[in-house]
Amino acid sequence: MSKCSVRHLSLLGSPLKRRCFLKGCNMSTTALLNGSDMGRVVTLDNMNPHLRVMEYAVRGPLVIRASQIEKELASGVKKPFSEVIKANIGDAHAMGQSPITFIRQVVALVSYPVLLDSPDFPDDCKERARVILGGCKGGSAGAYTDSCGIEVIRRHVAAYIEKRDGGIPSDYSNIILSNGASESIRAVMKLLINKSKDGLNNGVMIPKPQYPLYSASIAEYGLEQLNYYLDEDNGWGLDISELERSVNEARKRCNPRAIVIINPGNPTGQVLSRQNIEDVIKFAHREKLFIFADEVYQENVYAKGSQFHSFKKVLMELGEPYSGMEMASFLSSSKGYMGECGLRGGYAEVINLDPKVRAVLEKSISAKLCPTVIGQTVMDVIVNPPVPGEPSYDLFMSQKKAVLESLSQRATMVAETFNSIPKMKCNIVQGAMYAFPQIMLPEKAIEKAKSLGQAPDVFYAFQLLEKTGICVVPGSGFGQRPGTYHFRTTILPQPEKLKMMLEKFREFQTDFIREYS
Amino acid sequence: MSKCSVRHLSLLGSPLKRRCFLKGCNMSTTALLNGSDMGRVVTLDNMNPHLRVMEYAVRGPLVIRASQIEKELASGVKKPFSEVIKANIGDAHAMGQSPITFIRQVVALVSYPVLLDSPDFPDDCKERARVILGGCKGGSAGAYTDSCGIEVIRRHVAAYIEKRDGGIPSDYSNIILSNGASESIRAVMKLLINKSKDGLNNGVMIPKPQYPLYSASIAEYGLEQLNYYLDEDNGWGLDISELERSVNEARKRCNPRAIVIINPGNPTGQVLSRQNIEDVIKFAHREKLFIFADEVYQENVYAKGSQFHSFKKVLMELGEPYSGMEMASFLSSSKGYMGECGLRGGYAEVINLDPKVRAVLEKSISAKLCPTVIGQTVMDVIVNPPVPGEPSYDLFMSQKKAVLESLSQRATMVAETFNSIPKMKCNIVQGAMYAFPQIMLPEKAIEKAKSLGQAPDVFYAFQLLEKTGICVVPGSGFGQRPGTYHFRTTILPQPEKLKMMLEKFREFQTDFIREYS
Repeated sequence: MSKCSVRHLSLLGSPLKRRCFLKGCNMSTTALLNGSDMGRVVTLDNMNPHLRVMEYAVRGPLVIRASQIEKELASGVKKPFSEVIKANIGDAHAMGQSPITFIRQVVALVSYPVLLDSPDFPDDCKERARVILGGCKGGSAGAYTDSCGIEVIRRHVAAYIEKRDGGIPSDYSNIILSNGASESIRAVMKLLINKSKDGLNNGVMIPKPQYPLYSASIAEYGLEQLNYYLDEDNGWGLDISELERSVNEARKRCNPRAIVIINPGNPTGQVLSRQNIEDVIKFAHREKLFIFADEVYQENVYAKGSQFHSFKKVLMELGEPYSGMEMASFLSSSKGYMGECGLRGGYAEVINLDPKVRAVLEKSISAKLCPTVIGQTVMDVIVNPPVPGEPSYDLFMSQKKAVLESLSQRATMVAETFNSIPKMKCNIVQGAMYAFPQIMLPEKAIEKAKSLGQAPDVFYAFQLLEKTGICVVPGSGFGQRPGTYHFRTTILPQPEKLKMMLEKFREFQTDFIREYS
Repeated sequence: MSKCSVRHLSLLGSPLKRRCFLKGCNMSTTALLNGSDMGRVVTLDNMNPHLRVMEYAVRGPLVIRASQIEKELASGVKKPFSEVIKANIGDAHAMGQSPITFIRQVVALVSYPVLLDSPDFPDDCKERARVILGGCKGGSAGAYTDSCGIEVIRRHVAAYIEKRDGGIPSDYSNIILSNGASESIRAVMKLLINKSKDGLNNGVMIPKPQYPLYSASIAEYGLEQLNYYLDEDNGWGLDISELERSVNEARKRCNPRAIVIINPGNPTGQVLSRQNIEDVIKFAHREKLFIFADEVYQENVYAKGSQFHSFKKVLMELGEPYSGMEMASFLSSSKGYMGECGLRGGYAEVINLDPKVRAVLEKSISAKLCPTVIGQTVMDVIVNPPVPGEPSYDLFMSQKKAVLESLSQRATMVAETFNSIPKMKCNIVQGAMYAFPQIMLPEKAIEKAKSLGQAPDVFYAFQLLEKTGICVVPGSGFGQRPGTYHFRTTILPQPEKLKMMLEKFREFQTDFIREYS
């Protein structure tokens, strides 16, 4: 401080000059007082406070440590395991799932149209690629598309939705293609950022446990996060009285404006019944809530008796006044049987928006120019796959079926194994790609965690990682009822590896319980 | 109102219930009073006000009208022209530029690795693709990458920057890959959203004229837009006294925290001298500003005597204290000789950030998961092109050179032609992809525009579009000195088409001047 105290003191009186510009100092006057600033323009103290508080557990500290361990293993460090198993993220290809040939062939043709003359590509691939290129300006995947995506692909998406929903119309102008589903979820949620004249913030209802994209985006946007708990004792069911409790409490402090439903559930794997969806829609109507229907796992339904019902279909079939409700539904190329996370395809279908609001939505995404043409291409193939009689049909169907059947078997294996391990219990994985088992942590383990300043489930997950190389995400990253502890694991490791992982889990849990009992 | 007035009146007393739920009504109590609401949850009145006010002229109403005209032409409507020329956006492939073969071959191999066995792809392409796939989890472009991108590509980017800057070190951990440059520009700018304790907002200095991504993002983020005017009479030069005027005025109402420099300029096409860059850096240091160096046109320098100097190189060569300044520089796959807009590749190099702020930046982008692997692949090829002796070298160089030479000729042609048209003047296009000529509008035309409720330059551009099919962007979308009128046109139409377009311009302008004199 000595070096620049005079200059600093001369600045202290001015509210608009907060820094000392003496060479080598450059501290803020605040920093002069608290010593926390290295003279930088952007500091933790003055940066965007919303970004500071947001959390995205799926890529949090545990995952960073897992990557470090991978590097340690690669550099020869000895561990009680030979590889890290990243069961933290729904990333099928990373866990060894092969791409669907048809998707990749069409992508290759769109990227490098010279291949359209190659005899090595089936005609149905070429036909898809030609249609997509026909929708690209200048016939090139290198041209910007409309901000909502290529019109012909949006039309294919609408046709797919119409077919999925038994003929209920879908208008292509309601389809917004995006880089993965996350981007369009965030674009639509952004519409809601506002406070009412009485100073109350807008709020968004999300399930607990939830996929942390929602809590992260809500935090970033400065919205209020309104939790409704899923009922673990009833297969992670969605209880309307809990929704009512949540919204009634929320109205005391904010304006609830939207509800997020994840179906099939992430991280919880439940599949909502049609009745349940009807009840949610009626609830949302009573409470004047915009519906976010996160349906990215619609192809991932495994349990006997479970069936996917789209929110849009149920809403339309309920008729007036429900069929006029504002809703957005999302699909991603990253999930389903495709698992094309890295190619970033996704869409939103946004219905019943005020046309003026819709225009603002379109304007707001236009500054980002357009979603990747390759992601759009993947989405096109997903909604417009080979049909019987086309040359790629048999291979496509066999690959799709193999992935979904194997996922179904793994879903069963995971839940059954966890239920056979002491002090763990796990609901049936009806759909999606995850299990969210509960761990009954011994009191001593909870105390140990607290002594280390860690949440008990975080402590557990770090122990698991360090001792077995298995990387899961602690339940607190998704939300859980206070006093309960969980983790999310994907069911994506290939069957042999998954079996091995589950056995390691059994050993770890047995040792852990013994150590802390 | 009659139908539900009783219910409405019963609600009026409650601040938390604002809507009537009677079937067919559903009006808000406010709407009941002003009649502006159709019962929707999200309305212009209650939605995000920042999104309402943001504008992105490059995709504004004029472009929407141009697309309508294209559809009218396609459906057989007779017009005084047979095609729309979209000179509104820097989209080279849409205007007929062919992709660089090497880029597309590598993309095809990464997308569909079966092709690695094909004899039709050169070995250097295969080597690039193998390295990229080696950096993908599970060896698949379908796996999520790290949020900042694939490590090996980030390393290639850092090596490219180091070479570009004559050996000044670049650390790969400072490289953030993104879906085009826009995404990383927005991610970094988002860090600045905050108010100081005395309620003053943060502000960002941007040039006028500017690329409207900046004004749009500033508006969306609720930051203060601080304009500094470029000097049209001096080749769109950047005058430090004008920066000082701007920042001094701004300090009365906000906290200026950053300055955006676009070099080469968009829409103005100027290339900054080294001395000018030094002066800007010293100004930014004096005023404690974070530097956004938009250098996406760094390959696009045409004028004799003009040379691109990167901000980072100049900043580092200036030494302490400047070399410690916080800065982000951006590159895009959409510009240069590549023009790969639709594949969405881009990067930011972010230097000298407070490590804690940097951690928040990384966290904030992690919720978006990762940029497209194909966009990352394109960026890899751009920074790691074929070298002499590799099989693709000759073709790559001849394609690159052809594009850049043709652009250079078109840059000259455009400025010369505009200067030969009455009541127009245009600075030399030293770099980038645009000309930003001034039009001296007759008083009568200005009056006519005002009578129609249009800005004069918007009126001019609409007239041009309707009469010639040429779509440009009015100067007001970029900013211009009050009382002056401009438009931005790209130099991207292929030479013959550009010539034709410029002749149409001459005719239009001649007629326009005659009509309104």
